[in-house]
Amino acid sequence: MAGSPRRTAGRRLQLPLLCLLLQGATAILFAVFVRYNHETDAALWHWRNHSNADNEFYFRYPSFQDVHTMIFVGFGFLMVFLQRYGFSSVGFTFLLAAFALQWSTLVQGFFHSFHGGHIHVGIERLGRLSCCSWPCWRWCYLASTSLCSLVSSGVLYRPQLEKSKHRQGSVYHSDLFAMIGTIFLWIFWPSFNSAPTTLGDGQHRTALNTYYSLTASTLSTFALSALVGRDGRLDMVHVQNAALAGGVVVGTSAEMMLTPFGALVAGFLAGTVSTLGYKFFTPILESKLKVQDTCGVHNLHGMPGVLGALLGVLVAGLATHEAYGDGLESVFPLLAKGQRSATSQAMHQLFGLFVTLIFASVGGSLGGLLLRLPFLDSPPDSQCYEDQIYWEVPGEHEDLAQGPLRAEEPETRA
Amino acid sequence: MAGSPRRTAGRRLQLPLLCLLLQGATAILFAVFVRYNHETDAALWHWRNHSNADNEFYFRYPSFQDVHTMIFVGFGFLMVFLQRYGFSSVGFTFLLAAFALQWSTLVQGFFHSFHGGHIHVGIERLGRLSCCSWPCWRWCYLASTSLCSLVSSGVLYRPQLEKSKHRQGSVYHSDLFAMIGTIFLWIFWPSFNSAPTTLGDGQHRTALNTYYSLTASTLSTFALSALVGRDGRLDMVHVQNAALAGGVVVGTSAEMMLTPFGALVAGFLAGTVSTLGYKFFTPILESKLKVQDTCGVHNLHGMPGVLGALLGVLVAGLATHEAYGDGLESVFPLLAKGQRSATSQAMHQLFGLFVTLIFASVGGSLGGLLLRLPFLDSPPDSQCYEDQIYWEVPGEHEDLAQGPLRAEEPETRA
Amino acid sequence: MAGSPRRTAGRRLQLPLLCLLLQGATAILFAVFVRYNHETDAALWHWRNHSNADNEFYFRYPSFQDVHTMIFVGFGFLMVFLQRYGFSSVGFTFLLAAFALQWSTLVQGFFHSFHGGHIHVGIERLGRLSCCSWPCWRWCYLASTSLCSLVSSGVLYRPQLEKSKHRQGSVYHSDLFAMIGTIFLWIFWPSFNSAPTTLGDGQHRTALNTYYSLTASTLSTFALSALVGRDGRLDMVHVQNAALAGGVVVGTSAEMMLTPFGALVAGFLAGTVSTLGYKFFTPILESKLKVQDTCGVHNLHGMPGVLGALLGVLVAGLATHEAYGDGLESVFPLLAKGQRSATSQAMHQLFGLFVTLIFASVGGSLGGLLLRLPFLDSPPDSQCYEDQIYWEVPGEHEDLAQGPLRAEEPETRA
Repeated sequence: MAGSPRRTAGRRLQLPLLCLLLQGATAILFAVFVRYNHETDAALWHWRNHSNADNEFYFRYPSFQDVHTMIFVGFGFLMVFLQRYGFSSVGFTFLLAAFALQWSTLVQGFFHSFHGGHIHVGIERLGRLSCCSWPCWRWCYLASTSLCSLVSSGVLYRPQLEKSKHRQGSVYHSDLFAMIGTIFLWIFWPSFNSAPTTLGDGQHRTALNTYYSLTASTLSTFALSALVGRDGRLDMVHVQNAALAGGVVVGTSAEMMLTPFGALVAGFLAGTVSTLGYKFFTPILESKLKVQDTCGVHNLHGMPGVLGALLGVLVAGLATHEAYGDGLESVFPLLAKGQRSATSQAMHQLFGLFVTLIFASVGGSLGGLLLRLPFLDSPPDSQCYEDQIYWEVPGEHEDLAQGPLRAEEPETRA
Repeated sequence: MAGSPRRTAGRRLQLPLLCLLLQGATAILFAVFVRYNHETDAALWHWRNHSNADNEFYFRYPSFQDVHTMIFVGFGFLMVFLQRYGFSSVGFTFLLAAFALQWSTLVQGFFHSFHGGHIHVGIERLGRLSCCSWPCWRWCYLASTSLCSLVSSGVLYRPQLEKSKHRQGSVYHSDLFAMIGTIFLWIFWPSFNSAPTTLGDGQHRTALNTYYSLTASTLSTFALSALVGRDGRLDMVHVQNAALAGGVVVGTSAEMMLTPFGALVAGFLAGTVSTLGYKFFTPILESKLKVQDTCGVHNLHGMPGVLGALLGVLVAGLATHEAYGDGLESVFPLLAKGQRSATSQAMHQLFGLFVTLIFASVGGSLGGLLLRLPFLDSPPDSQCYEDQIYWEVPGEHEDLAQGPLRAEEPETRA
Repeated sequence: MAGSPRRTAGRRLQLPLLCLLLQGATAILFAVFVRYNHETDAALWHWRNHSNADNEFYFRYPSFQDVHTMIFVGFGFLMVFLQRYGFSSVGFTFLLAAFALQWSTLVQGFFHSFHGGHIHVGIERLGRLSCCSWPCWRWCYLASTSLCSLVSSGVLYRPQLEKSKHRQGSVYHSDLFAMIGTIFLWIFWPSFNSAPTTLGDGQHRTALNTYYSLTASTLSTFALSALVGRDGRLDMVHVQNAALAGGVVVGTSAEMMLTPFGALVAGFLAGTVSTLGYKFFTPILESKLKVQDTCGVHNLHGMPGVLGALLGVLVAGLATHEAYGDGLESVFPLLAKGQRSATSQAMHQLFGLFVTLIFASVGGSLGGLLLRLPFLDSPPDSQCYEDQIYWEVPGEHEDLAQGPLRAEEPETRA
C-alpha cells in the first residue's frame, strides 16, 4: 500500500538524507567553532580556589529544562489532538527541536558569545539559548507538518481536503493528550517570555506579567467558549489553545511597566479574540479565503500577536522617567539617553510590526512555494492528517474488551 | 438533546456571567491595590548597582512552577480516571486554579505584603502564594464538580445515582492518565508542604519528612491493596490515591522534629488507613450513611488529615528544648519564650483539630445547600460523571482499527 | 479465572509480605542510623544568625525533583508501550522507585555521610542520592517485571512465549503514553549524568555533553529508522528508545574534555547502533540465541553502554595536562599527581569494562535463576505482558461511541 515504488524509494531516502546532511554540516561547524566557555572548560574554570559553595551549580531562571519541557512536552503534545496525527506531532516536534537546539548554538553563539574566533558555550545560558531557537524550530515544525502558516496556506490550498476531513477532528483521549501539552505550555510560558529579557527587575516583571495575563486569558476563554458554544457547551479546541493567548499577547510588553492590572486586561482581551477567532473566523478563512488553518495558528499566534504588538506600542508611548526610574535604561535605552521621545519609541515599535508582517508574508509565501516542489512528495489530499504515511502504526488487535483471560480458564474450572 | 430551551439558555449564560463578574471584580481590586514589589518594579529595583551575578534570578525552593505543576497537572489529571469526566476534571481544574491564583494574590497579599495602602507582588514569592491558594481552589473544585466533600454529600444525596453507575468506573487509558496526575503530585508534594514553612532548617525538614512519608505510604498501599484485593490483585484506585496519603499525614508535623523514622511510620500508617478506607469504608458510606464520595476525598484527605492532626498533637507534646535547640523559636515560638508548655501546645493543637472539623461541617453543609439552589441547574441523577453536559465531546468515528489506508489502495495495486 | 486456589492464596500474600518485611527492616535501620544533617536539624542549623537571604533554599543542579521526574515519569511511562502492561509498568516502577529511594538513603549514607555512628541526611543532597539509587531500582524493576536483562533472559527462556505474542505490541495511545516517558527522560538525562560528578566545571561539562549527545542521537535515530523501515516509514519503538542512546553513550566520558563536537559524534553513533540493533539484532537474539528482550535493554543500555565505555577509554587515553589544566585533578586525580600515565588510565578504564561485564553476567544469571524459583509463581507463557494477573483491570463498558446522551432524549423532544 501507500504509493508507487518510486514514491516509496523517494520517501525512504528523503528524511535520512536530510538528517545526515544537516547533522554532518552542523557537526563540522561545531568542530571548527564551538568551544566550552569558562564555566565548562576544565582548564579555564575560574572558581577553582573558591569555597565549596561557590562551585555549586544553582538553577538560574529560566532553566534550560523549563524551556525544553515547554517545547518538547508542550508543543509536542498540543497537536496530538488530531486523532491520527499524534505520532507525527510528537515525533516531528522531537526531531525538529533536537536539531533546532544544535542550530541555535551556532546562530545565537555567533551573535552573543563569539570571541577569539570561537563560540563559547555553557549549560547555564542554555535556557536563553533554547528559547531563541523557538522561532526557528517553530517555523520548521509548522511548515514541515503542513499545519501551515496563514500566508503559505493560501499558496498550498488543497481543494479536495474534505477527503481527509474525517481525520481532522479529535477523539476523546487525543484531546486529553493535547491538554498535557496545553498545561505544560501554560506553566512554562513565563519562563519562555522572560528568557530574552535583561536580568534583574525586567526578568521578574516579564514572568509576573505573563503569569497574570495567562490567568485572565484562561477565564475569558471559558467564558466565551460557553457563551458561543452549542447549547452553552465548552469546546476543547478553545481551552487547548485560546487559554494560552495571554502568553502571546504580552510577548512584547511584559518587560515594560504594564502593571498587574494591565496584564489582566491584556490577557482577557487576547483570550476573547482568540476564542471568537476559532468559532467564527476559521470557518470564514477556509470557505472564503481558501486558507486551511488546521491548528488555528492564526487564532493563537496571529491575532493575539498583532494585538500584543499594538499593546507594546501603547505601553511604550506611555513610558515616563517617573514610572521606570533608573530602570528606563535597560528597557528603553534610547529614551533614557534622551535620544528618543516616548511617542517616537511607540512609532518605532509600530513600524516594527509592519516589518514583521511583511517578513511573515514573504517568508510564508516562499515557504509555501518550497513545499509545493514536486520532489518533496507531499501527501495527496485524501491522506492528510494521517500518521500511516510516515509511521508504522500498530494494528488494533488489542483484547481490551474481552474481560477475563481465556487462556487459563480451564485451569480455573478444574 | 440535553435539556429544555430554558435550561439550555441558563447554561449558556451561567458560566460566562460567573467568569465575567469574578474577573471584573478581581481586575478592579488589582487596579486599586496590586503593585509590583521592589524586585519587580523598574523604578525600585535595588540591586541595580551590584554585580551581574546579583541580578541573576535563582530558583528558590519551592518554585512557583513546582506548585503549578502539582495543581494543574497533578490534580487536573488525578480525576481523569472517570471514563467520561476527563474533560471536566482537567478543564475545570484549569479554570478554577487560574482564578484561585488571582484571588490568592489578593487574599495572601492583604495578610502578608500589604503596606502603604498597596499589595506588593513579585514572582519569587509566587511559589508560596500559589500554595496558599490551594484550600481555596480545592474547595471550589470539589464543590463545583459535585465530587463533593463528605458533609455536603449527605445534603446532596442522589437516590437514583445508580443510573450513572456505568460511568463511575474507569477505562484502561483513563487510569493511565490518572497515574500522570498521581506521579506529579507525589514528586511535588514536598514542595507543597514546605511552601508555608519558615525559611531555613524548617523548610528542609518539611521537604525531607514529606518525602520519606510518601515513600512509606507507597509501600503500604501496594501491600494492603494486594492483601485485600480479589485474588490478590492490585487496585489502581488505591495506587492512584492512597499512595499520596503520606503527603497528607505529615501536613501538620513535617516541620517538627518528626525524625526520618517517624516519617516512615506515619506514611506507612496513612497508606494503610487510606487503602482500607477505599476498600471497606467507602461502600459503607454510600449504602449506610448515604454519602457518595466518588473520588474518595474521605480516604485520601479526610482520615489521613485527621490522623496527621493527631500526629501533630503527639509530636508537639514531645517537643523539648534539647531536641529543637535555638530552632524552637521558629517552630514553637510560645514554647521558646516559656509562655506555654509542650503539653499545653499539644492541647492547643488538638483544639485546632476540633475547630477545623466544625468549620468543615458547617462549611460543607452550607456548600451543599448552596449547590441545591434550583437556578444552579445541577444535572439529573442519570447524567452525572458525564462530560457531554458541559463539553462538546468528539464523536468516535476514528478509523484506528482499519489497518492500511484505503484511499491509495488502487494506486498500490497498479 | 487466573489460577488455582493455592496459587491465588500465594499471590495474595507474596507482595504484601515482601513489602512489609522490606519496609519493616528499612524502618528499623532508619530508627537506628538515620539522623537529620546540619541543614535540616532544628538544633544544629548553622545559618540561624545570618541574613534572611542566607536562609533561602535555592535549587542546586540537579534537583531531586529532576531525578524523580526522570525515574517516576520517564521510566514509568516508557514501558507503557505494551498494550496490556501499562498498569504494571507505571505501577511497579512507582513501587520499586519508592523503595529504592529509602534504600539508597541507607547505602549511599553509609558511604558518603556516615559519621559519629549515624547517617546524616538532608533534602539538598537528595538529587545525587536519588540518582545513585538508579542501578538498584533499575535492576529490581527489570528483573521483577520479567523484562529481563540479556544474560538472565537466556536462563529464563520461555519457549511458548508466542502465546503472549498478540499482547507484545503496542496500540496507538499506548505509544503516545510511552512518548511522555521518552521526552521526560530526554529532558532530564543531563541532570542524571551530572549527579555523581564533582562540582564546578565537571558538572557543567557533563550536562552540556549529555545534552549535545542526545540531540545527535535523536537525529540519527530518525534517519536510520526511516532508512531501514518498511516503505521508509518511521518506527515508534526506535524513536522511543534509540533517541535516548545519546544519554547512555556519554555516561562515562561526559565529565571528560569530550568537546561539543565529540559529543555530537558519540550521540550520532549511539543512535545509529541502537536503531540498527532494534531492527536487526533483536530478532536474531530471539530466534538464534533464545533471548527475549522485550523492551530492548540490549539496544538502549547494552550496546550504547559498551560503546560509551570504549569512548571513555579513548578520551582518557588522550587526556593531557594542557587540555585539562588544573582541572585534571578533579577528573583524573592519579594523572594529576603523576602516579599514572594517560595510557595507563585508559587501560584501567578498559579493565573496568570487563569487570562490569563479568559482574553483569554473573549477577544476571543469578537473578534469572532466582526468578525461576517455584514459589515466585511466575506467570505461564500464555499470560505474559498482561496486567490482569496483578491488577484489577476495568471492563470496557464505556459508552464513548454512543454519541448523544440517551437518558434525557425524551425531555429534549418534549
